[in-house]
Amino acid sequence: MKEFDTICGIATPIGEGGISIIRISGNKALDIITKIFIGKNNTNVKDMKTYTMKYGNIIEQETKDKIDEVIISYMKGPHSYTTEDIIEINCHGGVISTNSVINEVVKAGARLAEPGEFTKRAFLNGRIDLSQAEAVIDIIRAKTDLSMKSAMMQSSGALSKQITDLRKYLLDVLALIEYGIDFTEDDEEIDDSLVIKVKDGIAKTISKIKDLLKNADEGKIIRDGLNMVIVGKPNVGKSSLLNMLLKEKRAIVTDIPGTTRDIIEEYLNIDGIPIKITDTAGIRETNDTVEKIGVERSREKIEEADLIVLILDSSQEIEDEDKEVINTIKNKNHIVILNKIDLNKKISKDMLTDLDNQIEISAKTGEGIEKLKEKIKTLFFNGEIDSESLIVSNVRHKQALYRALENCTIGLDRVNANEYLDLISIYVTAAMKALGEITGDELEEDVLNKIFSEFCVGK
Amino acid sequence: MKEFDTICGIATPIGEGGISIIRISGNKALDIITKIFIGKNNTNVKDMKTYTMKYGNIIEQETKDKIDEVIISYMKGPHSYTTEDIIEINCHGGVISTNSVINEVVKAGARLAEPGEFTKRAFLNGRIDLSQAEAVIDIIRAKTDLSMKSAMMQSSGALSKQITDLRKYLLDVLALIEYGIDFTEDDEEIDDSLVIKVKDGIAKTISKIKDLLKNADEGKIIRDGLNMVIVGKPNVGKSSLLNMLLKEKRAIVTDIPGTTRDIIEEYLNIDGIPIKITDTAGIRETNDTVEKIGVERSREKIEEADLIVLILDSSQEIEDEDKEVINTIKNKNHIVILNKIDLNKKISKDMLTDLDNQIEISAKTGEGIEKLKEKIKTLFFNGEIDSESLIVSNVRHKQALYRALENCTIGLDRVNANEYLDLISIYVTAAMKALGEITGDELEEDVLNKIFSEFCVGK
Repeated sequence: MKEFDTICGIATPIGEGGISIIRISGNKALDIITKIFIGKNNTNVKDMKTYTMKYGNIIEQETKDKIDEVIISYMKGPHSYTTEDIIEINCHGGVISTNSVINEVVKAGARLAEPGEFTKRAFLNGRIDLSQAEAVIDIIRAKTDLSMKSAMMQSSGALSKQITDLRKYLLDVLALIEYGIDFTEDDEEIDDSLVIKVKDGIAKTISKIKDLLKNADEGKIIRDGLNMVIVGKPNVGKSSLLNMLLKEKRAIVTDIPGTTRDIIEEYLNIDGIPIKITDTAGIRETNDTVEKIGVERSREKIEEADLIVLILDSSQEIEDEDKEVINTIKNKNHIVILNKIDLNKKISKDMLTDLDNQIEISAKTGEGIEKLKEKIKTLFFNGEIDSESLIVSNVRHKQALYRALENCTIGLDRVNANEYLDLISIYVTAAMKALGEITGDELEEDVLNKIFSEFCVGK
Repeated sequence: MKEFDTICGIATPIGEGGISIIRISGNKALDIITKIFIGKNNTNVKDMKTYTMKYGNIIEQETKDKIDEVIISYMKGPHSYTTEDIIEINCHGGVISTNSVINEVVKAGARLAEPGEFTKRAFLNGRIDLSQAEAVIDIIRAKTDLSMKSAMMQSSGALSKQITDLRKYLLDVLALIEYGIDFTEDDEEIDDSLVIKVKDGIAKTISKIKDLLKNADEGKIIRDGLNMVIVGKPNVGKSSLLNMLLKEKRAIVTDIPGTTRDIIEEYLNIDGIPIKITDTAGIRETNDTVEKIGVERSREKIEEADLIVLILDSSQEIEDEDKEVINTIKNKNHIVILNKIDLNKKISKDMLTDLDNQIEISAKTGEGIEKLKEKIKTLFFNGEIDSESLIVSNVRHKQALYRALENCTIGLDRVNANEYLDLISIYVTAAMKALGEITGDELEEDVLNKIFSEFCVGK
């Protein structure tokens, strides 16, 4: 285990609440708390047993002024989150109390932790691998039960195990190749059975990687949410539809802390699928500068969307404006909602031959809402959501798996073409490296830093 | 100790962070956690010692699905916050993880706590008195170190002790009166020395109450902040002044959770005095409806202000509009800032004879800013802030003290007028009751409920 300095951070969300937690990790944790904590019965903190707590006060070192009334808890390494000695201070959950306490901790010798630094240490100290570390932030940011479940599975090491197995297959292949190369140096023929074993090893790896990638698109949606953009002219019933959807299962409002505090994203939860709804103004051409910006943004949103929902008022004729929109979305994932079916129908389905997935609803009465939800599930999850098996949900993992797959595929092709084994070993090694990036066995430091910088402070 | 049902609540601020705490309090706390927690080594939770922790998972009772990875801690009553058995669950600090865990706790038999209910129990179970309970929320909402220190002092029971002493003095007076009345029933003369003792007892109480009330106005400011309204025409330098003040000590941004999440108040910290800054549009008469509302609001803000700061551009002549403002504020606490003293001066102090506290500054260079701060301190704290002695900061306490004072004063007057002792005992009893409202010894249930309803959930 490497020796790091002792760090501290506020582990609870920022704001007003009953309790805040200040976490200290490192080999000086006990020294530091000894300087600034006085227990109720003057008991010695240094004698604390692991996984026990003490009630007392945090004091200002010089003046001995009471800063806050707290309960401290001690988790001795290696049985702690970071595998280092950890002290957690539970103080009053106010802005001043929390800042005052962490201030004393810093004065007593700890360094303010960087975002994700506690989890980074858990990784660097070998308690968890990188995919498990990444799952921690996925658990915290989870938008539905399904996202949470998927992240928990990854956190428990389900993905790590699969990747480790894959890397073992490839290592076996490399060993075989090495053995084979040694033989060819003696100018002997390579044993056919060895080549077959190499082929089998790579083929098995390819098949397993494909299995993992099968649900990766769904995984991304489960983790990050389905980016659904709603398009429609004014008064076609956009807000009624939204209200209807939101009423059934109240959207989760996620407050992103830190510099972007003001951003509040709203998610809809359809059977565990988190759906991020973006509402747009129409996308018709305009000469007005201000409105042009709005239209420009709408087009951008449509470009980025996973799904575009076009709402039409079925009691109105289709206008040129609608046709333009239809033209824009017809080659993308889309659903067309014919609203106001309780009124006189003036649009028929055959007027919209360019578009698939047409659903008639009445946002007023709620008729057709279930069909809409089913359609969304069918489009992205083939109607069924598998919450039991491991899903690759992280784009970084998906890309690494694709790179591993590509190298394995080329490697296999070359074996089939009877090419030199040492050439093949290059591809197998590259595939192993790509897989190692998922677990963090092989990774550049800057990539690592980027991953943890996206964590919240104090985790 | 009364027997209450078992309650639970999220004790940490709402939002995304490393850790959330779910607190369970009541005699079923251990039963409940046993149903939904599986420790790492399958150790029995029921055998947990007080002030120890365990690592494991919260599980869904029926399916045994893992909900979240947690650390639980146990504080056995009466040595806990509520004096009841308390289990705290530290889970991942996400919206879904926290809600999922508390959901299981509720399913296992706990009731969601009302705001302040944990602290209310600490009070009802006799661990703390009402003034200490109120100090808890003051600690959490503290806006500066000084507010925090004052609340900590109250939390430690400094006010409670004083009030208890005062009630004891009055109880002694009542005993003397009772003794005196018994004598008069026997038609004997009342001993003069007894009357003197009654007088002394009431007089001593009066003197002590006055001591406590001496800094109560400052106390309110320390607790709630000084409500400072800035008035001035456009371009006189309001925003430069604000920026200058804010730059020196970065304002505390307090995010009020709950229903009023969107409200963000900004406080300035001048040597520990929290100053809430309200900026206003001008207050000139207008016929425009929309603007009229703005002007109306400005007037309201000026009415509510503790201090009005008028900013004038000293390089411009005084206009009718300025005179109107001067007229509005001259009888209130005010400071006049003559800005832009680096330019040609066109306003002289004698043109503002109606106004006191004139300060020349240059918001551009920073000249005069220190004088402004000193002036604010002088106006409200006589220049010196006493952070060591107990300050009554709660308006409810102040009002109760005034009622006690009033009754004592009348009582003393009647003793001096040689009125019947049993009449005097009415006033002494009323004074005792008023004091008892501070500590909660005498209080109506609805007042109690109102006090705790202003707490955050989970405290």
